[in-house]
Order: sequence, then structure tokens, then C-alpha cells
Amino acid sequence: MFAIAPASGKANLSASQLKLLSGKARWIFRVGEAGFPTVPTIALTRAAWDALQTERSKKDIRLRTHWIACLFKLVDRDGTPPSLVVRTSAALHNGGLAPAKLGIPAPASPEDSVDPTRPLAKAIKNAFESYGFSPGWSGRADEDRAKQIVLVQAAAPGEIEQFLTRNALTGALGPAPVNGAPLPRLPASVDALVALVDAKAGRHMCCTVAINRGEVVFLSARPSQVPAAAELEAAVDRVDRKIWTAQNAVSRVDPHRLAQLLHPRLKSSEGAAPVAVGLGVSPGAASGPIVFNPDDAARLRARGKHCILVVNETGPADIEGMRAATGILTARGGMSSHAGVIARITGKPCVAGVRTLSVDTNEMVCRIGDREFRSGDRLTIDGNDGSVYAGMLPLTQPHIGGAIGRLLNWSDASRTIAVRTNAETVESARTALSFGAEGIGLARSEHMFFSPERMVALRRVILSEDEDDRSRAVNGLVDYQTGDYQALFSTMNGAPVTVRLFDPPLHEFLPRSDEEIEETAASLGLAVRALRLHLERIAEINPMLGHRGVRLAITYPEMLQMQMQALMAGVRAASETQNEPVSVEVMVPFVSTASEVAWVRDRVNTIVANSGLSRTERVKFSFGTMIELPRACLRAGDIAHMVDFFSFGTNDLTQTTFGISRDDAPTFLAAYQRKGVYERDPFVTIDEKGVGEMISIAIERGRAANPGLKIGICGEHAGDPASLKYFAGLGVDYVSCSPYRVPVARLTLAQASA
Amino acid sequence: MFAIAPASGKANLSASQLKLLSGKARWIFRVGEAGFPTVPTIALTRAAWDALQTERSKKDIRLRTHWIACLFKLVDRDGTPPSLVVRTSAALHNGGLAPAKLGIPAPASPEDSVDPTRPLAKAIKNAFESYGFSPGWSGRADEDRAKQIVLVQAAAPGEIEQFLTRNALTGALGPAPVNGAPLPRLPASVDALVALVDAKAGRHMCCTVAINRGEVVFLSARPSQVPAAAELEAAVDRVDRKIWTAQNAVSRVDPHRLAQLLHPRLKSSEGAAPVAVGLGVSPGAASGPIVFNPDDAARLRARGKHCILVVNETGPADIEGMRAATGILTARGGMSSHAGVIARITGKPCVAGVRTLSVDTNEMVCRIGDREFRSGDRLTIDGNDGSVYAGMLPLTQPHIGGAIGRLLNWSDASRTIAVRTNAETVESARTALSFGAEGIGLARSEHMFFSPERMVALRRVILSEDEDDRSRAVNGLVDYQTGDYQALFSTMNGAPVTVRLFDPPLHEFLPRSDEEIEETAASLGLAVRALRLHLERIAEINPMLGHRGVRLAITYPEMLQMQMQALMAGVRAASETQNEPVSVEVMVPFVSTASEVAWVRDRVNTIVANSGLSRTERVKFSFGTMIELPRACLRAGDIAHMVDFFSFGTNDLTQTTFGISRDDAPTFLAAYQRKGVYERDPFVTIDEKGVGEMISIAIERGRAANPGLKIGICGEHAGDPASLKYFAGLGVDYVSCSPYRVPVARLTLAQASA
Repeated sequence: MFAIAPASGKANLSASQLKLLSGKARWIFRVGEAGFPTVPTIALTRAAWDALQTERSKKDIRLRTHWIACLFKLVDRDGTPPSLVVRTSAALHNGGLAPAKLGIPAPASPEDSVDPTRPLAKAIKNAFESYGFSPGWSGRADEDRAKQIVLVQAAAPGEIEQFLTRNALTGALGPAPVNGAPLPRLPASVDALVALVDAKAGRHMCCTVAINRGEVVFLSARPSQVPAAAELEAAVDRVDRKIWTAQNAVSRVDPHRLAQLLHPRLKSSEGAAPVAVGLGVSPGAASGPIVFNPDDAARLRARGKHCILVVNETGPADIEGMRAATGILTARGGMSSHAGVIARITGKPCVAGVRTLSVDTNEMVCRIGDREFRSGDRLTIDGNDGSVYAGMLPLTQPHIGGAIGRLLNWSDASRTIAVRTNAETVESARTALSFGAEGIGLARSEHMFFSPERMVALRRVILSEDEDDRSRAVNGLVDYQTGDYQALFSTMNGAPVTVRLFDPPLHEFLPRSDEEIEETAASLGLAVRALRLHLERIAEINPMLGHRGVRLAITYPEMLQMQMQALMAGVRAASETQNEPVSVEVMVPFVSTASEVAWVRDRVNTIVANSGLSRTERVKFSFGTMIELPRACLRAGDIAHMVDFFSFGTNDLTQTTFGISRDDAPTFLAAYQRKGVYERDPFVTIDEKGVGEMISIAIERGRAANPGLKIGICGEHAGDPASLKYFAGLGVDYVSCSPYRVPVARLTLAQASA
Repeated sequence: MFAIAPASGKANLSASQLKLLSGKARWIFRVGEAGFPTVPTIALTRAAWDALQTERSKKDIRLRTHWIACLFKLVDRDGTPPSLVVRTSAALHNGGLAPAKLGIPAPASPEDSVDPTRPLAKAIKNAFESYGFSPGWSGRADEDRAKQIVLVQAAAPGEIEQFLTRNALTGALGPAPVNGAPLPRLPASVDALVALVDAKAGRHMCCTVAINRGEVVFLSARPSQVPAAAELEAAVDRVDRKIWTAQNAVSRVDPHRLAQLLHPRLKSSEGAAPVAVGLGVSPGAASGPIVFNPDDAARLRARGKHCILVVNETGPADIEGMRAATGILTARGGMSSHAGVIARITGKPCVAGVRTLSVDTNEMVCRIGDREFRSGDRLTIDGNDGSVYAGMLPLTQPHIGGAIGRLLNWSDASRTIAVRTNAETVESARTALSFGAEGIGLARSEHMFFSPERMVALRRVILSEDEDDRSRAVNGLVDYQTGDYQALFSTMNGAPVTVRLFDPPLHEFLPRSDEEIEETAASLGLAVRALRLHLERIAEINPMLGHRGVRLAITYPEMLQMQMQALMAGVRAASETQNEPVSVEVMVPFVSTASEVAWVRDRVNTIVANSGLSRTERVKFSFGTMIELPRACLRAGDIAHMVDFFSFGTNDLTQTTFGISRDDAPTFLAAYQRKGVYERDPFVTIDEKGVGEMISIAIERGRAANPGLKIGICGEHAGDPASLKYFAGLGVDYVSCSPYRVPVARLTLAQASA
């Protein structure tokens, strides 16, 4: 124990004492050292406190003598023993900790000062014990536990006031009000305290001071969680004030927080009348099918689908489901409700307190006013103004500008790894470009068929009975594709576009419900019964590991032929209308052997050669493979000398390395995390020890066989900051993530390069 | 070209000439060298022939002079130019080759002898060209092509006769008849030829001789394919005659051929009246559901199911389907029909020529007499006597004795790797023991529930709604299991038994057809609609990668608890009734992380400790894991120090390493093999370059972390000779295969150890 802010004089702490300072204790010391008036304070470690108690049972007094001497340092020159305050000093604010205990009389005797039945020692004991109940501390090592600090302060005269160092919404330098409470009248001298704490902390801090006749005395400070936008504005402001360099700002902003700023908004609600209006408690708009429980949300999320979680109210058990949902709609609660708090922290649009909404989880139906919505029906919510609309309203994408734009530009200066996007439509390519994407790393050609009309064409291919039938059906797809490719290349205007060859896993593209089957039969001109029989015949037991990827190209070469012809026609058309050469990279999915790559490469090269485009300066052409199966990683050396690039598909590689179907994982993954079997979800953050080793084996063998090999990552992990840092360490050339994740990747990779 | 058997004197071939000898040329030389009368013969390589033709166009004569000199060596002392015979000399008999051309007049001039419009040169040219059309030769390297030999022989006077060196059915030393033709009258001097050729060839040979006034002259010999039983009897006979050592016999018998001898037979046909009788054209009995096309057979085979292929007749396109079927039944054809030949070669029971059978492939129905059978209906066929029965008649397993028994005993002397079996029923354990299994390497505990009554109990567990419900259902399983375990341990009488913890992939154990669903609903006391909803809810998209294996133990710990209690009760009961200690090995399936192993191990150890059996000398207990996922291979070091053994599940490891669902592979695997993308089916023979590296990484890391680690293989590859040789090279301690494959593994591993 030691006085970090004695009533008179300086603290003169030793190096080992300084090392113990954390949380509020650190702030009191720093502010005092900077010359700002600070309340007299002792920092008492748990180790010291335990030693005092041991000594007490042994009737020893050496440590107690020192303790009393410290207590005396709280006494001002006037010599009156002060009333005391006991506070915890955790690094993070935490709901489980004991609140400050005020008005404790100074102990009457040295014995009293350590006797847990007496007020001071009792308060200290309670404060230490509260750490044990706090999830932020439990489970840490014993060594950390011994360093836990309780503060004993002299009570300061005057009014106790709290303020933030920066505005919680705009990030402007404070003092600023806390939690919407009015800002108290503060003397001008507070400005110096605010500037001091902001510069030292580099984040929003909540300060507690005593104000006595215009004199400000510092009591404590702790970090305050604020929306990401405020954090970002503050970071840029610190650069403008020359407190930080641009690189400081880049390294200090959490990429996860940045992601929260990239919310879609309603394009326009014109003409659409809300079915209800509640409170917009978390910004952004979302649309999609509704679900009534977290499990359904998790299931849809696992399949890459959006959804709106609709509940009467949320509680701690719903957090996973809220993370999985795209947006949240509740009947009860307001700005400070569980739903609102969690939605803002996780960056999900949320409308709460819709009084006309009621959810019947038994009947799996909700009512909004006199309208009924069932699971799977579509809603749109606007978390800015609290409106709820029936159906899917068009959304518009966030704009990168202002503080975000400046931060990302600073990021690009130190980034060495390129950031591309996964996109196959002009719209998402434009979004990604506006977010700074430097190319398309994954255009899933089969996704170009997601409109109902085109889906019919695609189903016709999948359901064709023989080669002739299939050739005709494939020809029907060529027209759509040629135009799509041209538009995509034109949009990217010379930036590279990696087109993955057709890879439709059957189960994602075939009709399933009775209604869908009837519709499909009608549109294909088939009898429903015949279609059902056909569907049964081609149904796969494990479609993820079935007839897909390169296997389609090899078994149905006419599909490869047609797709390549459409692609080359698109390349030709785009190259005739733009100045930049078209940069097209053909990528073979789901290979497990070099022989598959050789087979496809020979045919692709022939088609490219026949197109006459390979010898022009208007087109840059390259050929590569996805590496997404363990065997492809092991045989990377054989494969590498046949290709220009590898692109790791980390989703499928995680599925096969772990033997886990992502679709089916929700039934056990939650239990695995709860029981500590998995530390984290390997589909969110790359599993470095398993999947990571697979990737590094492949990179090592691939580069050894082909030193010019370009290496990218195109799974969803390419949008996850922790994974991105790991990939940067593997020396990849580029990553490709969803458009909304492009800024996150730009920032994270800048941090990784620093 | 050179005379390998001149009319007078010896051949005096150089070392390089000797190296060129192959096929019949080699036999003529060998027999002649051994002093047996041989017809004068020239061996003409394609290289020599091509050179003669080139010289001819250049009007050169050096080579032609040599050629004529050789031809002169065919002339006997009487000086008359003989009539000539031209034969091919391929190493293997091959249907595409030109037949021997007899009665060619000796060329009138040197020019005539090389002129392709003249009889001798024309016959030689035709003979060489026929190699090109023969699948056995096409595609070989040019170097091999240059070594192809055509024989030019002097016509021998007398009758030309053929005979086998050994009986085609019994393997007894010959001379013996060819293809059922009566054995010609042969002089006693033939015996010496037979003994000579048998000793040198070590296999059945078909010899051609000329017999002139009791004098035998050797013309040629080629290997003859005979049933495996005859080969085996011959091998053992050669050991008895001291031509071979026992080790020679072990190394010379092809394990694939041995497998053909292990056919089941009808236990008894008493009381069963055949619905038809045809010709038994390939031995053994088979029973199972019927299919009408090779694709359906392949599909069932991929799922590990038996079936009988029923067709009007077979042709080359049906070979794959015949390999996949357990037995073959045809309406037309006899002993020498395509079906008969292929069935005998592949070792499948076959009944052919059932005149009352007709198959309607359009209607997917067959009629036998006035009875109708649809796809999936059950038949039993007896390839020994040609009987066909409706339904499934009980089969009895082949006995290891006689020649097989002697050969396998010789094998065991040089074998260093243990052979266990995959079995969970007393019956299959007994079969495996009779075949020489040294333990059970894989008892799939969930397979103990394959009877209808038990399947209800298992479905009750899978379909239970919550933990209480599940606990009750699981308790219902305990009683079955305890007795099963006791019986299994008692049968194995001290030999090790590896019990794999419960691993039911949902799709294999849930009802699928409407009929099954109705039955299941009735037996579980559920409404059909409720059951359907439940089935839909728990249906998995990729069950192979779903909620199975160790994931069940971790999410439903009560299942692990109950299974271990039943197991320990079975161990206790068995240990009380036998002298040998019970050797039980608990094995965790489908692990991908060390944390899963640790989780299960702690619980298993607690249950074993509480049983009181771990500290007795009556029980040997060990704990291990299946290694069947790529991640488990990579993390083998972490896992190894927690376990006593690894057992590689090569089926699932192949599925995940390649990203191929075995169930769904038939749709593209055939095309892959046809197009040369895969050399062989990786589910039949282990993929050394991919899956093999996974296994060797795991063995290396596992043994480094735990030098005492025991290593086994328990996938189906453990019954495949090529794979077994590879595993032996990896230094495994044991393999575990299906009971019928135990003799194959014993023989193969003996060959690998030699």
C-alpha cells in the first residue's frame, strides 16, 4: 500500500509501485503528477491487504505501522482526521463491483483500521470481495488477483460532479454531459483537466471531481463506452490537435468498432406507410424475413442469410440471436433497454417499444396492429426513426467520408496487402468501390442467377436429363452472363476481377417447399410428380461435399465451355468501351488434385486462345485456383506450377479441416463454446492451429514451386480483424471480403503492417 | 532379331538379347535351354523389324543378311526350307492379338523375306500391328513398343496339342485339359515338360506342343487364368514338392485372389423351395435387395449395402455394376457367358441362364415364373447349384482350412503387424476369429441397434425433446448394451476389444419413407404430423459433418454416462466368467481438437475409476481416439499425450481431405476415372499423396509427443492389399478390417513384412 496522492507533497513512488498502478489509481497518480489538485488517496493492493490480515492474526505490527503512516498522509495540514471514501479501481468499469462507500469515519486506533468488523476495514474487505463476483476478474491468474487495488481516499469537501472528457455522440472535446444528464456548472479550470486526461487516455473518460467554491479537486476517472462514431471523430480530432500522429489514430481505432459505422439506410420511405412506429434505439436500417427466436436467427446466419429478430423483449439469453440477426424489433423497452444497449454495442439496427406489436412464440406468429406476420414474412425496420414497414424496402449503403474517410486514407499509407471484395453484381461492386476496394477477389458466377427469372434458367440446367438437354439449358444462361460480365468489368474499370467458375451446391439452388416445387414445375413445363422424382434422384446426402465446384466442370464440360465463352464475350465487350485493359482472373473452385486443375486449365486456355483476346493489350488474363480443401493444401506444390494465383476459401477449408458443416453447427457450437471446448467460433475467427497450419503449408509449398505465385484469401474470415492480422503474418498478397467489410480490412491490415 | 531356338545347337544369346525376351519367346528359350525338344524359332523385335524396313527403302543389305542367316537357322540338317508359322509373344494373353498364322511358305528370296506384300513379311507386319489394337499394349512408352516381339517358327510336323500344366479347378499337377476340352493323349515325356514349366513359371501355364510319332516338340506357352482356389492349391502343392519355400508361397499368392475364396454359402436350403433354378456359374451364395442397373448397385455399394444385380444379360458396360453388387442373377447366358466369366474373375456369386426370369427395366420389375419382384425386394442366390430363392436365406461363412489355412499360418510367421476386425455382434466376431482375427479394432456401438426393436429404442433417444426425456430413452438402451458387451467380451476371451463411443450420423438412423415414419410414430406413441415436424427440425444439411461423434458426447453428456456404465457393467459380467482378463479400449470418434479429447477423457476416467474395475487384474483398460479429420492429424501432438492409442478412420479422413461425400461420389467418380482425373477410387485404395501424408503427419507428431502411442487403422482401406502395404510402411501396430478381409490382411501384411 502506498499513498499515490498524499495530502501534501508528491508521491515519490518506486518503479515496482508504479507498475502496480491500474484503473482509477493510475489516473489519480497521473493527474496529481501533472500538478492538478487531487484528493489524498492510498492505493491498497490485495496482496498488501492480505498481508495486513495475516500479520493481525500473528499479532505482528510492522506492516500495520506502515499502513497507519499511509493513512496519516491523507491528513491535511490542518491535522483534522478526514472522513474516508473507499473505491474499487478496476481497469474497466464493471457492473459487479461495489460502489464507492462514502462517509467512513477515520479509524479510532491502528487495531480498528484493520479489523473487518470496523467500518474502514469492512468497506475495504467488501470492495476486494466484489472483484470476485465480477466477471471481468473471475478466472484470472492468482498473480493478477494479488494486484487488485482498493482506493482509500480522504473525503473531499464540496459538490461531487461527473462529466465526460468528450461528447458521447459527436466526439467533440468536453467537458460533456454523462448519460444525457445535464452538464453541471464547472469552473474553467476543468478544461485543463479534460485536455490532460484526453491526451493521456486517448479515449472517452468519465471523470469524477469535487467542486468546492470554484476549486476543482480530482477524485477519479474511468473509461466510458461510447458509440463508434464518437470514438472515431475523437481520434481524428486528436490528430488535428497534434496530440496523435495519423499513425497513432490508425493503430488506436478498433476495426470491430469501425464496422459498426457502416450501416445501410433506407433509400427512401416515400410512398411506404409504416405499419408501426416505435423508438429508433440503434441506428441503421435492415430488411429481411422475420424470426421469433435466437436459434432460427443463428440458423439463417449460418447460411449467410439476413433476418429480423422479432421478440416481445430481449434478455441475456438472446444475445447470440441478436448478434446473428441483421436487425432487432421489440414490443417493449426503450433507449436504455437490454435490446437497445446490446444493439448499439453490436451495431445492429434496432426498433424497440412498438406498442402495437405482440409476439406469440407458441403459434409462431406476431401481430402488428391488426396485421399478422408469420415466420419468414418480410419486414423492414429503420433504427434511426423507429419506423417498421411491411415487405422489403430498398436500402442505401453508407458513405465513406468525413472522419472515416480521413482515417482510411491514413490507413492506406501504411498498408501493404491489397483489399478486394466479394461481389458479382454491379450494385455491390459499386458499394465496395465506394468503400475503397481495389478489385474483385471473388465473383461467384452462380450468384448471378438469384433473381426468380434467372433461377428458372439455372434450375433448368441442374435438372436437365442428358447432355443435349443440358447444352440447350446452358445456352440460355450465356446471354445473361455475357451482359453481367461486361457490366461488372466496366464498373471495375481495369481493376482485377476474379471470376470463380460455376459452383452451385445443389441444395442451395433447388426448390424445396411444396410451393416452390409447384412453381418450378410450372416454369420448366414439367409435371410436379416427375419433378419430385427427379429431385429425389439427384438429392445429395452431403451436398457440401457433393457434385459441385470443379467436379461440375469435369463431368459437364459443356457448362465450362459455355461459361468461358460468355466470360470472353463479356471481356471483349468491356474492353471495347473502356481505356483501361480488362483484368480478368479465372478461378477453379473446390479442387483436390493437380489433375483436376490441369484438366480445366487446358480447356480454359484453349477457349481463351480461340477468343483471340489473350494476345491483345486490352486484356490481362490469369488463371488460378481456390484452395479450400485439405488435400489441395498438401498438394499445393503440384498445383502451383500450373496457376498464377491461389485464393484460399477459408469457409470450406474450415468445414473440411474440422469436419463441421457450418449449416449444421449451431446445434452443438453454442454448447462447445459454453463448455469451453472451443474458445471461439472457427467460422468467425480463423483457427490458427489447424486451418491456419493448412494455409501456411499450402503457401510454403506453393511459393516453393512457383515463386511468382500470387496469394489471396476470399473466405468470410477476410472480414474479421483477428483473422486478417493472422493472414498478414502469412504474407498474403491480397484479401477479398464482403463490401461492408472492406473498410475494416483496410484499417486492420494497416495496423498489421505498422 | 535372333534365333532363340535354332534347329541345331544352342542359341548362345548375349545378355542384352536375353533381356529382350518376354512372353512366349522367353518360354521357348527356357524350355530349349533345359534340353527339351523345341521347334526352331526366331524372335524378331519391332525395333529390328522397323530397321529392316528402313534398310529396305535405302537399298542397304547388312541387316537383311543377318535376317536371312537367322532364317537359315530354322532349317534342319536335312536342308529342306520349312513351312513357317508367325506368332505374337505378348507377356499376357490378350484377345486383341493376331492368332498364329500357319503354313507360310519360306520366302523365295532375301528381298521377298522383307517385302510386306509377300506372305512372310505380311504375316509379321500384321502380327506387330495387332499389338497396337490391344488394350494391354496401347498407351505404353515407345521404348516398350520397340521391344514387342513376333516369333517366326519352323512348322513342326505332327498333331498340335494344348494342355495346362495344372488342373484348372484342383490345382493338381498336370498335364490337364484346357477349357473343358478332353485331354489329348500325350506321351509320358510331357510330364517332364510340365514339371519344368511349372517350376519355372510358378503359375498355371497353357502349353502348345507338336506330337509326331510319340515325340513331343515344344511350340509355346502362356499363362492361363484359373480360379483362385486352383492357384492356391497349386502354391501349397509347390511347397510340398519343395519347389517353393513357404515364404515363396506367401509372397506369390495375390491377396486379391485370396479374397475371392472367402465366399459365404447357404446355411441350409431346407424347407425353402427355389423360385427358379439356373446355372451356378460362379460359386458362393448371396442375398439382399435386388437392383436392375449398375448405377443402383454402385449407389448401394457406396452406402456399404449388399444387393443382387438382376439383368437379362450382362455386357462390358455392366462390369462396374457387377463389381458393386454382392451377387449377379441373369436370365440368359451360361458358364462361358460374359456374366459367368466376370463373376468368376471378380469372385461374385452368379446364377445365369434362368429361363423363367425376365427383367423389364422400364417398369423396374422382374418376373420369375408367375411371381413379380420389384427393386428392393429380397432374393437369395446360390452360385454353387444355380438355385434362386425369394427372401433372405441365412448364409454361413467360409471356413479357413486346408490350403488357405496352411498358407495363412505360413503368413503369420513373418507378419509383424496385428490384424483385428471391425465387429460388434457375436456372430461377426466369431467369423473373424475363425479367420484369424487377433482382436476387435472397431466395435461401432450404435450398430448394436440394427434390429427393428432396438432401432425404436435408438430413435427414441435421437428424437427425445429434452434432457429428461433423453435420459429416460438412453436408460432404455443400457440394458441392451450391457448384455451385448458381455457377450462380445466373452466371445473374444481376452483379446482386445475397441469400443467406439456412440456415433450415429442422424440420416442413417432416422426413418425416411412414409411407411417408416408411420411405423416409427406408432412405436414411439407420437402423432405422424408431430414426428414429421420433429424430423424436419433436426434434419441436417450435411449429416456427415453434423452433430455426431464426440459432439454427441459433449452436448448430451448423459448419453456418454449411460454408455460407459453399460460398458463397465458388461466388462464386469464378462470378467467374472472367464479366466483371461477383459481387454477393453474406449475410443472417441470424430475429434478435431485436443480439448474434446480432454473433456471426454476426464468423464470416462471418472466412470471407470468409480466402477472399481480399473484397479483389478481382471480388466485391462485403455483410452484412445479415432483420427479421422484433417485437424486431428495436424494436432496429433496435443492429442497424443492424453491417449493410449490412435486409430485412423480412413473413410472419413478421405471424405474430409478430398471434400468428397462417399455417398454422393458415384455421380462424378466414374467420370473422373474415365477421364483419367483420378487413377483410382480413393475410397478403395488409400490416396498416398494426400490422405497418406495426413496419416504420416499424425503418426510422426503423435509418436513424438507420446513414444508409447499404439497406432491402428480401422477404415475399409484396412482390407485393401495396396493400402495395407502402404500402412505397413508407415509403421502401424495393427489394422482392423471387416471379418472377410482378415485373411487378406494376414497375407498382405506378411508380404509387406518380408
